[in-house]
Amino acid sequence: MKEERLRAILEAIKPLDELAMAKARERENKLTKPLGSLGRLEEIAVRIAGITGMTMPDVEKKAVVVFAADHGVVAQGVSLYPKEVTAQMVMNFVRGGAAISVLSRHCGAKLIVIDVGVAAELPQHEGLILRKIAWGTRDLSTEPAMTREQALEAIGIGVEITEMLVNEGVRMIALGDMGIGNTTPSAAIAAALMGKPAREVTGRGTGLDDERYEHKVAVIETALNLHRPNPDDPIEVLSKVGGFEIGALVGVVIACAARRIPVVLDGFITTAAAAIAFRMQPLVQGYMFAGHISLEPGHRLLLDWIGLEPILNLNMRLGEGTGAVLAMHVIDAACKLLSQMATFDEAGVSGPVA
Amino acid sequence: MKEERLRAILEAIKPLDELAMAKARERENKLTKPLGSLGRLEEIAVRIAGITGMTMPDVEKKAVVVFAADHGVVAQGVSLYPKEVTAQMVMNFVRGGAAISVLSRHCGAKLIVIDVGVAAELPQHEGLILRKIAWGTRDLSTEPAMTREQALEAIGIGVEITEMLVNEGVRMIALGDMGIGNTTPSAAIAAALMGKPAREVTGRGTGLDDERYEHKVAVIETALNLHRPNPDDPIEVLSKVGGFEIGALVGVVIACAARRIPVVLDGFITTAAAAIAFRMQPLVQGYMFAGHISLEPGHRLLLDWIGLEPILNLNMRLGEGTGAVLAMHVIDAACKLLSQMATFDEAGVSGPVA
Repeated sequence: MKEERLRAILEAIKPLDELAMAKARERENKLTKPLGSLGRLEEIAVRIAGITGMTMPDVEKKAVVVFAADHGVVAQGVSLYPKEVTAQMVMNFVRGGAAISVLSRHCGAKLIVIDVGVAAELPQHEGLILRKIAWGTRDLSTEPAMTREQALEAIGIGVEITEMLVNEGVRMIALGDMGIGNTTPSAAIAAALMGKPAREVTGRGTGLDDERYEHKVAVIETALNLHRPNPDDPIEVLSKVGGFEIGALVGVVIACAARRIPVVLDGFITTAAAAIAFRMQPLVQGYMFAGHISLEPGHRLLLDWIGLEPILNLNMRLGEGTGAVLAMHVIDAACKLLSQMATFDEAGVSGPVA
Repeated sequence: MKEERLRAILEAIKPLDELAMAKARERENKLTKPLGSLGRLEEIAVRIAGITGMTMPDVEKKAVVVFAADHGVVAQGVSLYPKEVTAQMVMNFVRGGAAISVLSRHCGAKLIVIDVGVAAELPQHEGLILRKIAWGTRDLSTEPAMTREQALEAIGIGVEITEMLVNEGVRMIALGDMGIGNTTPSAAIAAALMGKPAREVTGRGTGLDDERYEHKVAVIETALNLHRPNPDDPIEVLSKVGGFEIGALVGVVIACAARRIPVVLDGFITTAAAAIAFRMQPLVQGYMFAGHISLEPGHRLLLDWIGLEPILNLNMRLGEGTGAVLAMHVIDAACKLLSQMATFDEAGVSGPVA
């Protein structure tokens, strides 16, 4: 994707529809329940009205997009698992045996997996889209993870996949990721965008011990010192210390906002992508929901920075979109309550005593 | 129900199946995900294994039971809504227009509503079971809410409904309530069982202002001073300051525990019922899940007292089973993950690097 096209999409993003939100709020107050008693479900439904421009929005047709890629920095020993696991897990996703496969079925969401940079040749498979940019990124602790062109290509793929889904009738999209080692670029992005020290945004990923955790922090510090990515140029941040799957997720976020489709973040990696999109265009914040809060310390910091409150808190730290797809079910519930509940008048139910 | 029959059911309740839990934990550790990365979903699935005695439990067939009754104490002005709303909402439930109707459909749970004491003649309707004990309880601030026989009758109805559902193949039950004014008996029960002052466990229900809130606290204090219910005799607590729907919910909790069926609490009212059951037989704790945490202050205190951690926190305060049915979907997800995910061996995925 050309930088001009990206700029055009970002400029197409508009604020939430305040009129639709006011009408949805008015309807919430007429439904057969005490005022405000559905709590966050009411806020969620009202925001979906603002996103979609509809007073009684229908977001039942849902999809989870999982972008997969490998990371050169894994050579530095920042992950507990070997990088082969990325390709193995992609096949596990599409064969139905992974957590996200089970949860997508359970929540009635279509699952698609997109190879944007797995360091292995993947076979054709239903539910798998092959759009490999390269066989993994370069080692961000010694050189830029990718070129600026590759960063734009990744974003472009995210935009394109979103367009495809929206044209199929999908009305809500959850973000997922797969990439052994990808909490490292996510922490580097978080540190670069928020101007925080690496340690504050670095967690134990899939379960590092103390020694390897210290090493991971040092690797991220090295990368930040080497590249000094400019937070005012989010594409530079992405290309120097990011990942291909993170770039594609940036594309999904901005395309969802441009098409007025709610987009649900998962854990730390998808939120790092969302933070890049937010830095490009702050209006995307209104289109995003934080599905859950993971155990990675940088996740909470990024959510606070963007201004999002997680819907679920189940101590999950798996990625893949698992928290997002569960939250999507709650968001769908909130919209169904708004559109399907009877009003006091319709149901012949008395209101409060004067 | 005779008191001896109740005692027999309570004695039939056994501890969780530790062997099934150990096997489920072992399986969780072999599934294609980092150790422990599904967080609370793993704990939930393991406990369901302990409840059901199955390593790969299936709880997809779900039901929500909503017991409805009126409360004499409403004459004291403790509620914002007139008592007619109980009957009106029951019809709204079964006609599909209430929040619990929408959420039951959304979560794939069967909804049944049972009149155990609504102060109105209700018509026959699909999904509605008529088992009225009386036209509402008596005013607990001036006399016992019900007789000891009525309390046992209410519990018996809950047991019977549970038996019916379990025999139909239902494998998980969510608790719901409808009864204008029923946060007042719930607060009285909470105060009596935990030995706490009324103010600490009393909330604003459907939305009382300061003045009416103070009045509600005073009414509950009056009732507690009048009856001095003995916390060592939970049936006495129920009969003096309880409600018919609360009694029936007690029956569901103990019958679920006896039949090894997971039971999901909703808000303050269902948790007050659960607390009575817990006081009768502490082993019921293992069979219960706290669906969510409501805004009623007594709810958190009761959950802590029983030893339960809520699954969801969405600032809801509606009752009807709305928080419970959403949580039931999460519990079902946890069980499907345990039973349907592939192991590392099955999926050919590499484990952590040595």
